[in-house]
Amino acid sequence: MSDCDFGLIGLAVMGENLALNVESRGFKVAVNNRTNSVVDDFMAGRAKGKQFVGCHTVEELVKNLKRPRKVMMLIKAGPAVDAVIEQLVPLLDEGDIIIDGGNTYYADTERRTKYVEEKGLLFCGTGVSGGEEGALKGPSMMPGGSPDSWEHVQPIFQAIAAKVGPNNDIPCCEWVGPRGAGHYVKMVHNGIEYGDMQLICEAYSMMKEGLGLSNDELYDVFAEWNKGELDSYLIEITRDIFSVKDDDGSHLVDKVLDRAGAKGTGKWMSQLALDLGVPSTLVTEAVYARGLSSFKDQRVRASKVLTGPEPKYSGDKKEFVEQIRQALYASKIVSYAQGFVQLQAAAKEHDWPLNYGDCALLWRGGCIIRAVFLDTIKEAFDKDPNLENLLLAPYFQKAIDGAQDAWRHVVSQAAVLGIPVPAFATALAYYDGYRRADLPANLLQAQRDYFGAHTFERTDKPRGEMFHAEWLQERKEPV
Amino acid sequence: MSDCDFGLIGLAVMGENLALNVESRGFKVAVNNRTNSVVDDFMAGRAKGKQFVGCHTVEELVKNLKRPRKVMMLIKAGPAVDAVIEQLVPLLDEGDIIIDGGNTYYADTERRTKYVEEKGLLFCGTGVSGGEEGALKGPSMMPGGSPDSWEHVQPIFQAIAAKVGPNNDIPCCEWVGPRGAGHYVKMVHNGIEYGDMQLICEAYSMMKEGLGLSNDELYDVFAEWNKGELDSYLIEITRDIFSVKDDDGSHLVDKVLDRAGAKGTGKWMSQLALDLGVPSTLVTEAVYARGLSSFKDQRVRASKVLTGPEPKYSGDKKEFVEQIRQALYASKIVSYAQGFVQLQAAAKEHDWPLNYGDCALLWRGGCIIRAVFLDTIKEAFDKDPNLENLLLAPYFQKAIDGAQDAWRHVVSQAAVLGIPVPAFATALAYYDGYRRADLPANLLQAQRDYFGAHTFERTDKPRGEMFHAEWLQERKEPV
Repeated sequence: MSDCDFGLIGLAVMGENLALNVESRGFKVAVNNRTNSVVDDFMAGRAKGKQFVGCHTVEELVKNLKRPRKVMMLIKAGPAVDAVIEQLVPLLDEGDIIIDGGNTYYADTERRTKYVEEKGLLFCGTGVSGGEEGALKGPSMMPGGSPDSWEHVQPIFQAIAAKVGPNNDIPCCEWVGPRGAGHYVKMVHNGIEYGDMQLICEAYSMMKEGLGLSNDELYDVFAEWNKGELDSYLIEITRDIFSVKDDDGSHLVDKVLDRAGAKGTGKWMSQLALDLGVPSTLVTEAVYARGLSSFKDQRVRASKVLTGPEPKYSGDKKEFVEQIRQALYASKIVSYAQGFVQLQAAAKEHDWPLNYGDCALLWRGGCIIRAVFLDTIKEAFDKDPNLENLLLAPYFQKAIDGAQDAWRHVVSQAAVLGIPVPAFATALAYYDGYRRADLPANLLQAQRDYFGAHTFERTDKPRGEMFHAEWLQERKEPV
Repeated sequence: MSDCDFGLIGLAVMGENLALNVESRGFKVAVNNRTNSVVDDFMAGRAKGKQFVGCHTVEELVKNLKRPRKVMMLIKAGPAVDAVIEQLVPLLDEGDIIIDGGNTYYADTERRTKYVEEKGLLFCGTGVSGGEEGALKGPSMMPGGSPDSWEHVQPIFQAIAAKVGPNNDIPCCEWVGPRGAGHYVKMVHNGIEYGDMQLICEAYSMMKEGLGLSNDELYDVFAEWNKGELDSYLIEITRDIFSVKDDDGSHLVDKVLDRAGAKGTGKWMSQLALDLGVPSTLVTEAVYARGLSSFKDQRVRASKVLTGPEPKYSGDKKEFVEQIRQALYASKIVSYAQGFVQLQAAAKEHDWPLNYGDCALLWRGGCIIRAVFLDTIKEAFDKDPNLENLLLAPYFQKAIDGAQDAWRHVVSQAAVLGIPVPAFATALAYYDGYRRADLPANLLQAQRDYFGAHTFERTDKPRGEMFHAEWLQERKEPV
């Protein structure tokens, strides 16, 4: 009794795999699930002969753990998490740690950390990315919560996390920050994932519709792209997808219905960006694009009524493919820049001392957005921890400088050809807006002052001094 | 005593003006304000010699009203509204009506309607648009709440509202729907206003930067535009703004700092669109554009580092101005289409039997987005109350068909010239996405199924039947 290093509640696929991962690193693991048969099946199956203790109750699980106890929940985010916390609190002792590894909304983790700490315990809200396979072989882990929990969970988490670096020994797991910081960083990871996927779909659309590339040709393009700056998990699986055949020998991707689902984290990130007043346009356009895709029947009807140009590109095919690659790369840089700006704004709002280089490191391996590219982001923030926008880092400034002619050409051609590229286009608009000392918002403020007396600042007066003009009286009368 | 037709609480500018408007239509009005001196000043000033009763307490105000009593609050949205409701409830009798004319979040009105109805009273949440001037001379009014309240407020509201139509006798005030429907419609009005203003700013930016038009030339352009399809209040005031001079004789608009403020309704509409899963991309890009504008100091710094093309258009100036006008018109149609789609989705979610033709009518006069254009929208919905998207109405289908070459040219040139037009571009992407039977979301669903086993539907199987493929096993191994 009381000799287990780690307790895990929730033996769905993620939980099972994570438990096996922990055990495989030399830790003894107590497991529990709401339904006892799940525990029994696991013990008789994948856990057989390994250092596991199957527990039919939460009490039993707690009794089997060494102190300070570390109990991780991998259960459905929401009220179930609060219910298990309520079960655990009276059973645990001072300094014991409750870990939530689910896809939890960060504000719930803010609240739960405070609540659990008030009970004399520690809480650790941990973002876990990498899907089933990652959970088993090495996920990306983003722990946050009670700072004192870190020294106790660190040996286990860093042992099971994905490893990167030249010697494959740098874990994709670092302490993120207090309270909900870990789950917030996970949410931004997911939002960036939305952007990456949408950008790849737009590139696909341009090549399929604009250039008429076949699935075999697309396979080769993504295989090639995966060898360069875009080298990443999502480009790799996209390549793979274009090779998979259905039973009848045709490409399966063409049989997949174009109606995208979503689980809500991209929406959360967008809504929070709107609250913070930071323009995270990529994730939002990606969420909206999924929304538009879901109106399949309407689109089929609309396609018979609404007109548009023939989407055939007339220039050099090979050159255009390379231009699309550059447009994707430049847009991706903007997407990550926006994600980090949102993290900075959230950190300021919630008083989280985030390390942005670490965030890039956490995403370097194990998770869905893992990419070579993140090394360069880490370097940029390591060099300048207060970097206000990734676009200003010399490496990325040069990268966009080099890619922008192609990027502009692709966005421009998409408009002419009638192929929707909302993410490419909003990325370019953000870049062109961000690099402008002057935007047309002077007119907008004049309008607001005209009809609502909302006042304005003046370029020739100190910031913060507000003015109102009698636009109506002083206007020239129209002829 | 008890001979007043209407009670008004809150004598800030909007309240004062609305009270004067009501009185001017032959109604006797009791007024109250938290600070007594405000009441006294009003009575001794603008109310002098008119049919007003100044009341120092809410009790006094209630006592002066005919039954069923109609008490309107024009106070700061939020907790203050709940506080006044708490004061009123014990003083009122069955069938009396509490009206909230503030800029209230619709969900608060949903809640308050139920609460007030439980107390045996009626509640009427009314969106009021038109600013100070509108309140005095004729606002657009969007009442919702307890259906039984309508017959009692109708004579007063329709008397004071803006009038439109060939004989100037159609009031811009109709019953919107139960509970929070009125405030929701007002919110969508404001969100559309965000889109309209952003589109005008982008047109300004293209003409100022791309064509080098002077403020005097811009005045003439907007004066011209205001005579055609774009005839509207916002185009009119934009025209005016380009004529207003500062004390030194220079144009005032150039002295206005390009940092846009916002009061939150555009953000609300965006966040609710995200919850509903409907792509209201115009309002969201407009909100984000205001957000980006607020980072003035960063932009000034970035402008020294980030590169871009020379924004000079080389084609025919006059032709390009006309193309920009058409781009603005087409984008505006998309913006309104999105707004009505969101209204439809919200109506379904909240079980509001909205009349979309009426909504267009309410916005036809009195409010900030008032425009001739809304007549055509009303006609489209009157003709087909179940029209699923404004883009499908023959009039608008033809309008975009005619404008789209110009629209595509403008968006395309903006990308090449480096002038940010996020709203023009997202409008075009929406149009091109909506009119496509097939979007690249098939690839996105394949990706989601690959890494997360999220499953997908198949084009050759019934909708709703979900499939999962072993993409990893069946892929071709890369060379």
